[in-house]
Amino acid sequence: MTKLKVGIAGAAGYAGCELIRLLATHPNAEISWLMTGKTNEGKRLHEVFPHLRGVPERVFQPLEAASAEGTDLVFMCTPHGVAVSIVPEFLQAGCKVIDVSADFRLKDPKAYDKWYQMTHTAPDLLDEAVYGLTELNRSQLPGARLVANPGCYPTASILPLAPILQEGLGHLDSIVIDAKSGVSGAGRSLNLRTHFSETTEDLQAYNPARHRHTPEIEQEVSILAGEKVSVTFVPHLIPMVRGMLITVYCKPTRELDTKELTGIYRDFYDQEPFVQVLPEDELPRTKNVWGTNRCEMSVRYDPRSSTVLIISVIDNLVKGASGQAVQNMNVVFELPEPSGLESLALYP
Amino acid sequence: MTKLKVGIAGAAGYAGCELIRLLATHPNAEISWLMTGKTNEGKRLHEVFPHLRGVPERVFQPLEAASAEGTDLVFMCTPHGVAVSIVPEFLQAGCKVIDVSADFRLKDPKAYDKWYQMTHTAPDLLDEAVYGLTELNRSQLPGARLVANPGCYPTASILPLAPILQEGLGHLDSIVIDAKSGVSGAGRSLNLRTHFSETTEDLQAYNPARHRHTPEIEQEVSILAGEKVSVTFVPHLIPMVRGMLITVYCKPTRELDTKELTGIYRDFYDQEPFVQVLPEDELPRTKNVWGTNRCEMSVRYDPRSSTVLIISVIDNLVKGASGQAVQNMNVVFELPEPSGLESLALYP
Amino acid sequence: MTKLKVGIAGAAGYAGCELIRLLATHPNAEISWLMTGKTNEGKRLHEVFPHLRGVPERVFQPLEAASAEGTDLVFMCTPHGVAVSIVPEFLQAGCKVIDVSADFRLKDPKAYDKWYQMTHTAPDLLDEAVYGLTELNRSQLPGARLVANPGCYPTASILPLAPILQEGLGHLDSIVIDAKSGVSGAGRSLNLRTHFSETTEDLQAYNPARHRHTPEIEQEVSILAGEKVSVTFVPHLIPMVRGMLITVYCKPTRELDTKELTGIYRDFYDQEPFVQVLPEDELPRTKNVWGTNRCEMSVRYDPRSSTVLIISVIDNLVKGASGQAVQNMNVVFELPEPSGLESLALYP
Amino acid sequence: MTKLKVGIAGAAGYAGCELIRLLATHPNAEISWLMTGKTNEGKRLHEVFPHLRGVPERVFQPLEAASAEGTDLVFMCTPHGVAVSIVPEFLQAGCKVIDVSADFRLKDPKAYDKWYQMTHTAPDLLDEAVYGLTELNRSQLPGARLVANPGCYPTASILPLAPILQEGLGHLDSIVIDAKSGVSGAGRSLNLRTHFSETTEDLQAYNPARHRHTPEIEQEVSILAGEKVSVTFVPHLIPMVRGMLITVYCKPTRELDTKELTGIYRDFYDQEPFVQVLPEDELPRTKNVWGTNRCEMSVRYDPRSSTVLIISVIDNLVKGASGQAVQNMNVVFELPEPSGLESLALYP
Repeated sequence: MTKLKVGIAGAAGYAGCELIRLLATHPNAEISWLMTGKTNEGKRLHEVFPHLRGVPERVFQPLEAASAEGTDLVFMCTPHGVAVSIVPEFLQAGCKVIDVSADFRLKDPKAYDKWYQMTHTAPDLLDEAVYGLTELNRSQLPGARLVANPGCYPTASILPLAPILQEGLGHLDSIVIDAKSGVSGAGRSLNLRTHFSETTEDLQAYNPARHRHTPEIEQEVSILAGEKVSVTFVPHLIPMVRGMLITVYCKPTRELDTKELTGIYRDFYDQEPFVQVLPEDELPRTKNVWGTNRCEMSVRYDPRSSTVLIISVIDNLVKGASGQAVQNMNVVFELPEPSGLESLALYP
Repeated sequence: MTKLKVGIAGAAGYAGCELIRLLATHPNAEISWLMTGKTNEGKRLHEVFPHLRGVPERVFQPLEAASAEGTDLVFMCTPHGVAVSIVPEFLQAGCKVIDVSADFRLKDPKAYDKWYQMTHTAPDLLDEAVYGLTELNRSQLPGARLVANPGCYPTASILPLAPILQEGLGHLDSIVIDAKSGVSGAGRSLNLRTHFSETTEDLQAYNPARHRHTPEIEQEVSILAGEKVSVTFVPHLIPMVRGMLITVYCKPTRELDTKELTGIYRDFYDQEPFVQVLPEDELPRTKNVWGTNRCEMSVRYDPRSSTVLIISVIDNLVKGASGQAVQNMNVVFELPEPSGLESLALYP
Repeated sequence: MTKLKVGIAGAAGYAGCELIRLLATHPNAEISWLMTGKTNEGKRLHEVFPHLRGVPERVFQPLEAASAEGTDLVFMCTPHGVAVSIVPEFLQAGCKVIDVSADFRLKDPKAYDKWYQMTHTAPDLLDEAVYGLTELNRSQLPGARLVANPGCYPTASILPLAPILQEGLGHLDSIVIDAKSGVSGAGRSLNLRTHFSETTEDLQAYNPARHRHTPEIEQEVSILAGEKVSVTFVPHLIPMVRGMLITVYCKPTRELDTKELTGIYRDFYDQEPFVQVLPEDELPRTKNVWGTNRCEMSVRYDPRSSTVLIISVIDNLVKGASGQAVQNMNVVFELPEPSGLESLALYP
Repeated sequence: MTKLKVGIAGAAGYAGCELIRLLATHPNAEISWLMTGKTNEGKRLHEVFPHLRGVPERVFQPLEAASAEGTDLVFMCTPHGVAVSIVPEFLQAGCKVIDVSADFRLKDPKAYDKWYQMTHTAPDLLDEAVYGLTELNRSQLPGARLVANPGCYPTASILPLAPILQEGLGHLDSIVIDAKSGVSGAGRSLNLRTHFSETTEDLQAYNPARHRHTPEIEQEVSILAGEKVSVTFVPHLIPMVRGMLITVYCKPTRELDTKELTGIYRDFYDQEPFVQVLPEDELPRTKNVWGTNRCEMSVRYDPRSSTVLIISVIDNLVKGASGQAVQNMNVVFELPEPSGLESLALYP
């Protein structure tokens, strides 16, 4: 079989190099070009990412050089505001696009304008863009031209909410999402908040109730619930490099117990290759999904406070970004869904 | 002034050595004896804790050798179930006791039996024991014979809940406490969960809705609210040694905003030497209280989900254990409350 | 092709689970049985190692159940002293053995007795055992019955010493090996030294000039040098989970410079799939080999102090243990050497 | 007693805030002014360092506003090249100066020009500047106008070398200094090397045999030895925030043993309040000096390779920078040397 020809725009960040890692061993894809900003323009792959020695050499090209010609698919790993301006060209030239940035996730361009503080210049594409939370929107993916790859927090938050909402078992005004993320989610750009001496042995919440992933979560949760839902979303920065854990709290619409809930969740995700609902007596930990595309979750009923707890973990750079992008590529091009995503967790 | 003569039982753990550190520079107290279990019996202080070189040498004595004679105050840093059996003797001999363990925190002996799975053998002392969350029970402390020093989670959870509950501004069935603790809270005993290779670069929830600090939090929250309250309490283990951050979620009983809430909180804690309510545009981080007896907190109103958020941080070994024990000692013996607790945070 | 049937003895530690991870995706091998000590006997693989969900289920069997029948190869990941007593049986039954423990590394049984403080009970096998530092002893491996897989420190120390010693360019009485290891090298057994709160934010040397890997390094270095060599070897414990960095210091026998040295090293390791000599202006870091079987190194000449510096890095659990064991398996059974070892480094 | 009036130039970095922390509780000194660069000019102390809440408020002033008037002492915590240009003015105005930067450490202005790549503009002050490794140069400090506070690596390297060199027991061409430092030594400026995701779970050497602290170490070691000495110095970056460990290797000029060496070292440092030579069976660890001004060391003789090993630890920000600066201030102004430096290590 001919391999897919893939370009990566914004390839010099963590999502970019994780994509290169995953695609380097993918049986059905090969990297055609890597595009980057000024800092790394003209550098060879191994100069920017020496851990990728052994991967066929490429030179980082400037934005202008990125070409749709001979390219089947472009992954956009650029900062928000970039994809919106160049994706239309790629699509017109017949390329498919999986946008790992935030530009096509929000269906309402006004929400984009408000949360990202810039005007969306390609609002006509928003309807077409498939929100690529693969497990929930799989049927819309085959053949899609444009996929909006979900953010890391939304991925890890929506998956644990989907079963209870689709079953109508959660009070919609009671959803609390307490999110904890490893530091790599903040990217490779320098910032005092992610300076080692500031971050190690420290713990803090940031942007409580104001993080940009909030409207994205609410949009998808509202679809699941069948009505407009607001959630309380508070992210925290954890002194570790990879991994994300979400603790969801929700009041139930009727009496439940852990056993019944676990059954509901296992049924919901029964056939999923990358989602694992744990047995009643186990709890997820981020180390168990390190480097994998898997999401693990546990659900509990707390009878004392009549609250449903769901705890989920992902690797923020894999299922939370580049791994899910590859998963979406596989489904769009009707390849086996786990293709290139089968590596086991690196433990300890 | 004559210095207080102080004994420490269970001195070979982290709470014990933190007490020794704090008392070593305290102007009004001196250590008379250190008691420990079998493992360290007979060892000199510096053999067990070489970081305490410079502190006057002591030998760890067995339980039997601990004596009330010539001792003004005993700190109990023993595992639960030990204080309950030896505290009555100390009290009878005229010693005061500050129990850093859990034995005298729950007023209801049946709750103790249930959560700690053993029968409380000194239930008659439970009424007398003052719950030593200093800021809330200060008036009961001077001259008290027995102080139940709060757990780390309860300290960091009750302080942020007190203002809103005392003002009647929170819906009592909506309280969610998402707690995150550094690993030193789990103590010095060996366990696979706190083995370095398992814990570093890992994140997990543990005992969700079943942690032993739950009834302690509920007891005090119920007193503040004036009626029985159940809370949802989920602790998480964070890969860092010290520090605790609590994120409290609560539905308000009326429309509020961040400014008004901040004002209410600042008024409530205005005179407190160890509690700091941050300005509206700041958020607490554990690094800022590292090694100190301080609690910092921020309060926010999320208008989108109509939820009050309160985020608090402490050093789990200081304000969450040994520092608060010294603070209680100061108040019990009518010394200046900040005595011996004035060191600044060690940053970065 | 029929897959090799492989048994793993001592499979419940870190070397064991890393072997399971590597073999699970190996195209030419499959796991027949897993053996373990009392603690985990009878447990299923996923109970002990939940990160290995997705790997075909196995039950940990007691030592007695381990059988050579239908088994082509046994990996020994047991504590020292175990392999020596059961390997003879496996060999007699026609099984090959790769011993990841220390039992067959030292050619001189008296050295074993002295450093491991027990009498070697199978000294007749020591001559036959091939010291499996693959790059140096590759020619002896095909068809070998018994391979002594090197320790992590010796692997990372001998590889950077080999070129300079084989060329006769180093003063043999001047070799200093300053070694730094991540904590996973200390295994999964509980110990205060590897308790999270003790190890994080701490740095210490341990067993300076007395570590058991010293005679192993000296044995191989002496072979390379053609005469008996003593080295100064000081290991340090680094607060990270994986990774090992070795800094070698050696006085040269003649004037050299970095360029010439780099050339010598590049020639020496030119054809090696798992050893990379970096360009003159680059330095290795452990993160770049995380999860891989690769060794990266740089060599420098310090003209001011007339000293050769060689800095090497490996992942202590892969090239330093289980990865090299698989590499040796591949060569013993004349499979492609990189088989099953091709995954890229997990970064950041 | 009137308190010393102290100014701090370059107060917005880690050495600066550590000085503020130490001086805030010093019984004989008080901060008059804080000076900083553009970024933080005009900000209040607590805005830049919220962990210093409780310290009397100050506003960071621009360089121009720093005034010698009414100031007894200025600490320079500026990047190299700044002190050289403004210290002469301070001295002329009658202020004493303790320069925590590198500008007055090297006696030979040509060495400064070469290693710091700029021309030294105040070479006439180099002779007068006392190299403030307090333990070795104490007699020159009382009343000194200008103290060059040592670098962190030189402090932790020279202290363990002093006894063996002063006794003439070390071969001068055999000194290897393998240095390991926590990340805070790299300061508060942003850099990819100290970005959390790059640094955590990573280990690397940097500037091997080319670090700027090399000539500083050699200068002082040469004085101790009485002749010109070159050393091999290789620093490594350790994934922890504070702490430095130095492993020194040296060939002896005669047969020695650990016991004799330990005796020599204990005699040498017998009266020192901040240097502790450990008993023969103990090894230092950085955690035991965390937050203190102490240096702990062990010395060993390795009979197999005939090598002396000395292992020393300090807190790089205290004894390695700001703590030693305060120690020097105490001696210059003939205050009790341990004044303000008596806090115990924060453990675990």
